[in-house]
Amino acid sequence: MRIALDAMGGDHAPGATVAGALAASDSGIEITLVGDEGVIQEEIADLAVGGLPPSCTIHHASEIVEMEDSPGAVLRRKRDSSLRVAFELVKAGQADAVVTMGNSGAALAAGIFVGSRLDGVLRPAITAIMPSAEAPVVLLDVGANVDCKAEHLLQFALMGAAFAQVGLRRAEPRVGLLSNGAEAEKGTDLTRAAAALLAAEDTLDYIGFVEPGDVFAGRADVVVTDGWTGNILLKTAEATSRQMVTLVREAAGSGIVARTGGLLLRPALRRVLGRVDAAEVGGALLLGVDAVTVIGHGGAESRAVANAIRTAARLVEDGLLDGLRSALAGGALTESMRGVRGG
Amino acid sequence: MRIALDAMGGDHAPGATVAGALAASDSGIEITLVGDEGVIQEEIADLAVGGLPPSCTIHHASEIVEMEDSPGAVLRRKRDSSLRVAFELVKAGQADAVVTMGNSGAALAAGIFVGSRLDGVLRPAITAIMPSAEAPVVLLDVGANVDCKAEHLLQFALMGAAFAQVGLRRAEPRVGLLSNGAEAEKGTDLTRAAAALLAAEDTLDYIGFVEPGDVFAGRADVVVTDGWTGNILLKTAEATSRQMVTLVREAAGSGIVARTGGLLLRPALRRVLGRVDAAEVGGALLLGVDAVTVIGHGGAESRAVANAIRTAARLVEDGLLDGLRSALAGGALTESMRGVRGG
Repeated sequence: MRIALDAMGGDHAPGATVAGALAASDSGIEITLVGDEGVIQEEIADLAVGGLPPSCTIHHASEIVEMEDSPGAVLRRKRDSSLRVAFELVKAGQADAVVTMGNSGAALAAGIFVGSRLDGVLRPAITAIMPSAEAPVVLLDVGANVDCKAEHLLQFALMGAAFAQVGLRRAEPRVGLLSNGAEAEKGTDLTRAAAALLAAEDTLDYIGFVEPGDVFAGRADVVVTDGWTGNILLKTAEATSRQMVTLVREAAGSGIVARTGGLLLRPALRRVLGRVDAAEVGGALLLGVDAVTVIGHGGAESRAVANAIRTAARLVEDGLLDGLRSALAGGALTESMRGVRGG
Repeated sequence: MRIALDAMGGDHAPGATVAGALAASDSGIEITLVGDEGVIQEEIADLAVGGLPPSCTIHHASEIVEMEDSPGAVLRRKRDSSLRVAFELVKAGQADAVVTMGNSGAALAAGIFVGSRLDGVLRPAITAIMPSAEAPVVLLDVGANVDCKAEHLLQFALMGAAFAQVGLRRAEPRVGLLSNGAEAEKGTDLTRAAAALLAAEDTLDYIGFVEPGDVFAGRADVVVTDGWTGNILLKTAEATSRQMVTLVREAAGSGIVARTGGLLLRPALRRVLGRVDAAEVGGALLLGVDAVTVIGHGGAESRAVANAIRTAARLVEDGLLDGLRSALAGGALTESMRGVRGG
C-alpha cells in the first residue's frame, strides 16, 4: 500500500504536505512524496524531525501545477509536474493512490489522460464529502462536468452509491437527485430526465428529488447533480459557513462581556464545529478513473493532508475501484460489497 | 399610497400578517388586508387592540392559495383567492403594491396573468435581497425561470440594477454574473453567452463573473443568474445558515461553562446576526410585472411582514416601476434615477 502524494500542490505546499505526510506515516502507510527533491529536503530539515521515516520516500519531479493553470497545461506543458508524475507512479504500479491538495481541474485531466477511465465510465466526477449534522453526505459532481446529460447523472449515482458503501460504510445508500423542490414536476429538463433513469435502476435506492436543505439534514447518503450546480452549491455552503464564523467571531470581539462569553463558549463551539469541518473528512474524490484519487482543499493544513492520505489508504484497502467497477457493470452493487460491509 | 396585503398567505397567516399590518400602519401607510373577513376580524379581536386603525381596511376574498398549490391553481381555480384578489386591486387602481408571504410561484403567475408584464419584459424574475457582510446584495432570478436564455439574463441584469438604484440607493450598481470561477472560459454556454451581452450593454457597470463567495463579500451590488441556479444558491445559503445557528445553539447548551458563555455572548450575537437576517430586509421581489410586489418568506413572523409592507411602500414612493421601465427601454438608467439618488 503506497500513496503518491503531490507534495507541491496546494496553497501551503510543501510545508503542509510534508508535515501531513510525516503525520500520516506513523499509521503504517507508505508515502511517496512527489516533487522537487531539494525543496522537500529543506522542508524536512526545517521540521527538525531527523529525516524522513523509512515508510516515506521522495520521487523527484521538477515542475508544479499552479491553481490558475488550465487543465490542459498539465498535459501539454509541465510534463514533469508533481501532480502528473503522481498519476504516472500509479500507472507504473509504483503507487496505489494519488493524493493532491492542488488544482482539481488539472487532477481530473491527469487522471483521465495519464491513467484512464474505468471501464464504461462516460465522465469521471469530482465528488465532495459534505459535512452534515447527521453524517457526511456524498455530493457529485461538484465541478468536473459543467454540461451533463441524464446518462452522466445516472453514472454519478452509481459511482456515488458505490463510494458511500465502500468509503462511508453505508450498506444501502439512499440516493437523491438535487432539485429546486420535491415535486416530480420541479427541476430542469435534465433533472427530470435523470429522475426517470435513476428510478428505473434497480440497484439504486433512489429516494427522488432532494433540496439543498436535505443535503445538510442528511436525508440522503448520496446527492447527484451536474458539475455546475454542484460547484455552486459547494461554494455557497463554504462561503456561508465562513461568513457565519466571521460573524460569531465579530460578536465575540465586541466588548468585555461578549469577549468573556466567547472565551467560555469556545471549547464547546470548536468541538461542535469540528463535526462539520471539511478538514476532518480529508477532501473530495475523483471517481471514475483507474486510480483512487483524493483531492484535498487548496487551503489544507497538515492535519487535512494527513487525513486525506489516511482516507486514500483506507479506500484502496477497502477496494473502492472494484466497488466502482462492479457498480458500473450494472447490478450486484450490494452483492459485491458484502465483504466490505462486514469489515 | 395603499398596500394590498395577502392576509392569508404564509405559514403564520393570518396571525403574523394581521399583526404585521397593524405594526406597519402607524407609519402612515394605508393597508388593505385581503382575505376572509370573518377570520381576519377574529384575529384582530384576539390581538385586543380595539379594532382596526383608520389606515387599514379589509377586502374580502374567500379562498386561500396554499404553499403546495401549483401556480396554475391560482389562475384556473381559486379565482377568489386572497393572493389573486390582491393583484386585482392593483389592476383596478385600488392599491399600489402587493405584499404576500405566500407561494412565490403562484404570485408570479398572478402577477403576470392578472396584471401584465412591464413593456418589453420577456420574463419577470423573483429577486432576492441577500444579506451580506457589507450591505444587501440583489440576486436574481431565484426561481421564476428554471430554463433561461442569455437575453433573459441581460434583462435580469437591467431590472436588478434599476432595483438596486431605487430600492438600495446604489448610484452605480456593480453587476456580476454568477459563475463557477472568475476566468472568462468558466461557466456554462448560457453564462458565457450572457457575459457577452452584459459586457456590450453600456448602461450597466458589468464587472464580470462572480462566485458564490463574492455574493456574501458584497463584491457586486447585483448578481445575475438563471432561476434554477439562483434557487439552489439561495436555499443552500439558508440551509447552511440554519445549520450553523443550530450548531452554535448546541454548543451553548453543552455544559455549564458553555451555557454561561452562550448567555454572555447572546446579546452581541443577536446584534451581529441581525445584519444578515432576511426578516430585516423584508423578503424578495417580483420584478418585471406592472405591480410593485414584495414576496416575503413563508415562515415570516409579524416583524418581517411589517418590514415587507414598509419596503413595498418605499418602492412605490421611489418610483420602482418607472425605474424598471426606463432601464428596460434601454439606456438612461442612471439618468432616470438622478432624482432618486438625491432623495
